[in-house]
Amino acid sequence: MARTAVIAGVGPGLGASLARKFVDEGCQVGLFARSADYLEELAADLGDDALAVPTDVMDPDAVEAGFEAVRDAFGPVDVLVNHASGGSWKGVRDISPEEFERAWEVSAHGALLCSQAAVDDMLAGDGGTILFTGATSAVRGRGGAIGFSAAKFGVRGMAESMARELGPEGIHVAHVVIDGQIETPQVRESRPERDEAEFLDPDAVADSYWHLVTQDRSAWTLELDVRPHVEEF
Amino acid sequence: MARTAVIAGVGPGLGASLARKFVDEGCQVGLFARSADYLEELAADLGDDALAVPTDVMDPDAVEAGFEAVRDAFGPVDVLVNHASGGSWKGVRDISPEEFERAWEVSAHGALLCSQAAVDDMLAGDGGTILFTGATSAVRGRGGAIGFSAAKFGVRGMAESMARELGPEGIHVAHVVIDGQIETPQVRESRPERDEAEFLDPDAVADSYWHLVTQDRSAWTLELDVRPHVEEF
Amino acid sequence: MARTAVIAGVGPGLGASLARKFVDEGCQVGLFARSADYLEELAADLGDDALAVPTDVMDPDAVEAGFEAVRDAFGPVDVLVNHASGGSWKGVRDISPEEFERAWEVSAHGALLCSQAAVDDMLAGDGGTILFTGATSAVRGRGGAIGFSAAKFGVRGMAESMARELGPEGIHVAHVVIDGQIETPQVRESRPERDEAEFLDPDAVADSYWHLVTQDRSAWTLELDVRPHVEEF
Amino acid sequence: MARTAVIAGVGPGLGASLARKFVDEGCQVGLFARSADYLEELAADLGDDALAVPTDVMDPDAVEAGFEAVRDAFGPVDVLVNHASGGSWKGVRDISPEEFERAWEVSAHGALLCSQAAVDDMLAGDGGTILFTGATSAVRGRGGAIGFSAAKFGVRGMAESMARELGPEGIHVAHVVIDGQIETPQVRESRPERDEAEFLDPDAVADSYWHLVTQDRSAWTLELDVRPHVEEF
Repeated sequence: MARTAVIAGVGPGLGASLARKFVDEGCQVGLFARSADYLEELAADLGDDALAVPTDVMDPDAVEAGFEAVRDAFGPVDVLVNHASGGSWKGVRDISPEEFERAWEVSAHGALLCSQAAVDDMLAGDGGTILFTGATSAVRGRGGAIGFSAAKFGVRGMAESMARELGPEGIHVAHVVIDGQIETPQVRESRPERDEAEFLDPDAVADSYWHLVTQDRSAWTLELDVRPHVEEF
Repeated sequence: MARTAVIAGVGPGLGASLARKFVDEGCQVGLFARSADYLEELAADLGDDALAVPTDVMDPDAVEAGFEAVRDAFGPVDVLVNHASGGSWKGVRDISPEEFERAWEVSAHGALLCSQAAVDDMLAGDGGTILFTGATSAVRGRGGAIGFSAAKFGVRGMAESMARELGPEGIHVAHVVIDGQIETPQVRESRPERDEAEFLDPDAVADSYWHLVTQDRSAWTLELDVRPHVEEF
Repeated sequence: MARTAVIAGVGPGLGASLARKFVDEGCQVGLFARSADYLEELAADLGDDALAVPTDVMDPDAVEAGFEAVRDAFGPVDVLVNHASGGSWKGVRDISPEEFERAWEVSAHGALLCSQAAVDDMLAGDGGTILFTGATSAVRGRGGAIGFSAAKFGVRGMAESMARELGPEGIHVAHVVIDGQIETPQVRESRPERDEAEFLDPDAVADSYWHLVTQDRSAWTLELDVRPHVEEF
Repeated sequence: MARTAVIAGVGPGLGASLARKFVDEGCQVGLFARSADYLEELAADLGDDALAVPTDVMDPDAVEAGFEAVRDAFGPVDVLVNHASGGSWKGVRDISPEEFERAWEVSAHGALLCSQAAVDDMLAGDGGTILFTGATSAVRGRGGAIGFSAAKFGVRGMAESMARELGPEGIHVAHVVIDGQIETPQVRESRPERDEAEFLDPDAVADSYWHLVTQDRSAWTLELDVRPHVEEF
């Protein structure tokens, strides 16, 4: 079945790998991110099944317009990945209320707006899949990262609430806990001394996202974690 | 040791029981809530060791002024209870972005502002205690309550992050998961058919908060749950 | 890559589906269970890539002999599924110490013996995968099922310990939390009134087990849950 | 109210502190451990409200006789602390099936026998309290300690199952996660270089056990954790 997917928060790491995997599996994919430059480049690389949709996920009008653009190009949305994330790495003593707020806005508020737009399509059709990108800080609050921890915990709570509400309606909601650092060109450049085995290969992570999309509704997963085999945890 | 405490979000349920318990144990207590009426009544009832401080915990200036008023009356703050909470019981299909946002603002943003004010006093003194009131929805996202679940999860993430950052500095941060309904006059009136045993007695809950305040720093608790003995869970 | 797998605790539900899936994906599979009858029937059905190995997983000599038989037929073991489980559904007031003990023996002791046999093969080769079948009672102790809860929690603790020890050695250990009832011929017969949607399709669950086997070592999952989309949880 | 308590697994660390605390709070306490020497010394030190009862908690007859001795001296049992624990620190590659089994026997099997004896008294009377001593390895399986992890997870599963079964009957079951090393004379001698702040003071931990005993049934705790304020976690 050809699916229409939206990936919200696409950058040159896991977002790009998700886009490529989904296109390879026959999806048509809308790519959301604030800055257009990387999106255009990635969309060009992926071909006709990818559409760059520069979108600030915190802006309700922009989100609505973004989904409209995807629907116009590819039809109603079947799969959404809430992948946008942000947050300064500061503790309670250093963070400003604005920085704290912003971590929440990007991660949780943006995910709400995108989810609400996608749920309408899914309920009108044959259901769908909504995936959330989580982190270790979604299950274990990190000292010195209060805004990030609060936002990531909050998003996990959203995902669980949505899973219980939407599962019986035929929408599969799942949350992926990414434990470790994803390998991207920048990360590799900035940490040349580290062994490649210490990083998550974004293509490998994308395989597990895709597995979630393909699960039969009689055996849906709410949460799985992924980490490099050498990761201490 | 006489302690100065702030209870943020005082109403006629657990907030009032906490205030009374803390005063009984020798604390001087600042009571924060938005509306003055109940605060004044409670403070009058508790006597000279309680101060009504009408305060909107979402307003940074109000929080600062509130803490100043408490310091003027009772000295630097040793204990803070982040007890304010809010949130419409709506699912992802029904909640407005404003309602979603507001649940976060009351629970998390307010707790950040109060915590930052209190931490300064505690670090300048002999440490202190910061307690958070959580709920089942902080550990298990509830279908049909996305704003509440996101906010309560988020606050738990804050508490864990703060515990890891501040514990070594001598500040005890703990999170109490309240599983069930606290008995208040209104709750009793609205559910006269229910057995008293099904509710949490707020005075009993307050005993466990006070236990957390008195724990020796060699054996601090990060989290405990409380529920009625007949509660199914 | 052709893999040799052992599935310990094969019956006509998930065990059979796992065997079929693994054979379909090119594995050669040793089937362990105490009684030979069903094993022979299933192995005949699956063809030359399946071997019935009647084995009591609680008996060290039998486990050793069982692995030897698999190695003789198919070579060193790459994949092990610890799927055997047992336990009376009794509470602390009713269970006998022998019943309590037996739940542990089947689930945990048997898994230890099989894992130790398999780990040797995996460390001598290119690593491998060890999967554990868990249940809701592995993460949430069930009232009235103390033996089952203790055993299932215990097995989850084993799996986590093994994952941390063996991951860096190239052995992927994962634990699957099965939340709900798996559809088998008997279950369907005994509950004809229930909607099919309320059951886990064992073939669908087997797909997620297989996904775990194929994960790249840069993004291994320790735990995932599966449940029917209509399941309340 | 004078209570009769049994502490199963008393040694010169937390066990001794629990015994002293309980006696100080007016309990009469039966002390169970395998070797008599330390028990006699401790009982003599605590006076007439303590009784040394050399008991192997893995032996059903010994447990029965031990409870009989306590009942003869002090009356029916109101409080039980399942504190016995054991287990070699070995991984899956090194542990023998016997060592694995033994960790389970001491921790879980002994706790079952003691709990069954105590529950009879509690149900015949006004209820009671059963506390379990847990460890970090009860919530996070430890690499290289498979027997200990399996047993501690298993005991936590028992405690949760019992809490759900027995709570409505008036028996409070709780599980304490001890995160860190308890200071005992031996530990201090063997690690003289470590700062005292890195250890849990057993008297401080005993205060939290006692708090659990005194909780009102409208607000019972199932689980709390304790750790030194400087502990990284």
